[in-house]
Amino acid sequence: MNNHLLLTHIRGALIRLEETIIFSLLERAQFKRNRAAYDSGALGDMFGAESLVEYMLHETEKIHAGMRRYTSPDEHPFFSDLPEPLLQPLRYHENPLVKNTVNLNHELLRAYTDILIPALCAEGDDAQYGSTAVCDVACLQALSKRIHYGKFVAESKYQAEPERYTTLIAAGDRHGLADAITDDAVEEALFQRVAKKAGSYSGMFLDPQSAKNFQTTVTAIYRDIIIPLTKRVEVDYLLTGKR
Amino acid sequence: MNNHLLLTHIRGALIRLEETIIFSLLERAQFKRNRAAYDSGALGDMFGAESLVEYMLHETEKIHAGMRRYTSPDEHPFFSDLPEPLLQPLRYHENPLVKNTVNLNHELLRAYTDILIPALCAEGDDAQYGSTAVCDVACLQALSKRIHYGKFVAESKYQAEPERYTTLIAAGDRHGLADAITDDAVEEALFQRVAKKAGSYSGMFLDPQSAKNFQTTVTAIYRDIIIPLTKRVEVDYLLTGKR
Repeated sequence: MNNHLLLTHIRGALIRLEETIIFSLLERAQFKRNRAAYDSGALGDMFGAESLVEYMLHETEKIHAGMRRYTSPDEHPFFSDLPEPLLQPLRYHENPLVKNTVNLNHELLRAYTDILIPALCAEGDDAQYGSTAVCDVACLQALSKRIHYGKFVAESKYQAEPERYTTLIAAGDRHGLADAITDDAVEEALFQRVAKKAGSYSGMFLDPQSAKNFQTTVTAIYRDIIIPLTKRVEVDYLLTGKR
Repeated sequence: MNNHLLLTHIRGALIRLEETIIFSLLERAQFKRNRAAYDSGALGDMFGAESLVEYMLHETEKIHAGMRRYTSPDEHPFFSDLPEPLLQPLRYHENPLVKNTVNLNHELLRAYTDILIPALCAEGDDAQYGSTAVCDVACLQALSKRIHYGKFVAESKYQAEPERYTTLIAAGDRHGLADAITDDAVEEALFQRVAKKAGSYSGMFLDPQSAKNFQTTVTAIYRDIIIPLTKRVEVDYLLTGKR
């Protein structure tokens, strides 16, 4: 895939993922915070050391691993002890990434539980733990896909300016790389687009104040969680994959 | 729950479910029809007699059964051999339904595979079977919830006119019941609301022609699948639950 095709593909995928992320956050926001779903042991010892949400995510990943989900270069599991695919692996002829092991799902899960959920959901407990966890799995999978798309973004930026990046990578210059991959105008346009979408979608069935709150929260989630984690994926990919 | 509260609750739930259904159909429409995902044995014998989609749905229901999903009066499984809940059952104090075994998921799955998917998706095979099945599970669960809400609708209509319904039920008058539960003006308003939502949501990121096609397809899905199956649920509930 040439760099122009790669960029067009990345842009389309990231914009389409905004819908998936906003839809899944809207679904989760129907339920209260439900702390018990995130605390290991809070609902009994049937999930071992895992919280209910971790258990649900783990069991879902086992099924999806059987469907070869994690053989795709744009999918990353939260758990490492997953079964082998039942389906024959697809060949990803067009995979432009170099081999790498960057996976920031651990950090994502922590930010999701500690920052995103308290910001998104009304405080309290409505006992809808199963529904909560089903929504969480959908949100986490969409967010994970989004932040790890940073690998494709980084690859594209590297291909556009190989000499500049090679120098920064050779120097192990994490700050320089973070500066090089950042485009403030693009970020600002993204925040505005996401705010517009979040407001429009939620405004179709939430009351105006709730829709406004949702819009603010989604924009903050992009600003404080999604974009910072995406940039970390980009820098980690460049530093570990391109050496 | 008195009948006024019940009606308000039903109306809110059904309108909110429209978003979930439209979002999940939009996700599925990203992938081609992918017939192989629906044909038992098409991808090998690792799923036994099940198609890949049936396997994914079955495995998902096993996990969700553990989360007590199917102890809720508004949830109905597609499979009957599911494990017992791991969580303590919730008490549904407010459940207005009489005990009943109405479950039209078998018919729903057939209509989904044979009518809905060919109408929704571009013909062809993109080999994205896992993603296809993940979307299908989300669609089928939302559609199942929607059609089985007919039980609440039927209960509410029965409570509003018990004598009229008791007579029809005693006579086993399926046609008379179908007439009694039908309100053409309400249905027409629903089709128009769904068309508006489907057009608005899809119009935010599909090209105008694709958005128009999606809008038409979603309206047809409501007219030809969701509403007829909901009415069958209503009549079956009245005939078997209210005897």
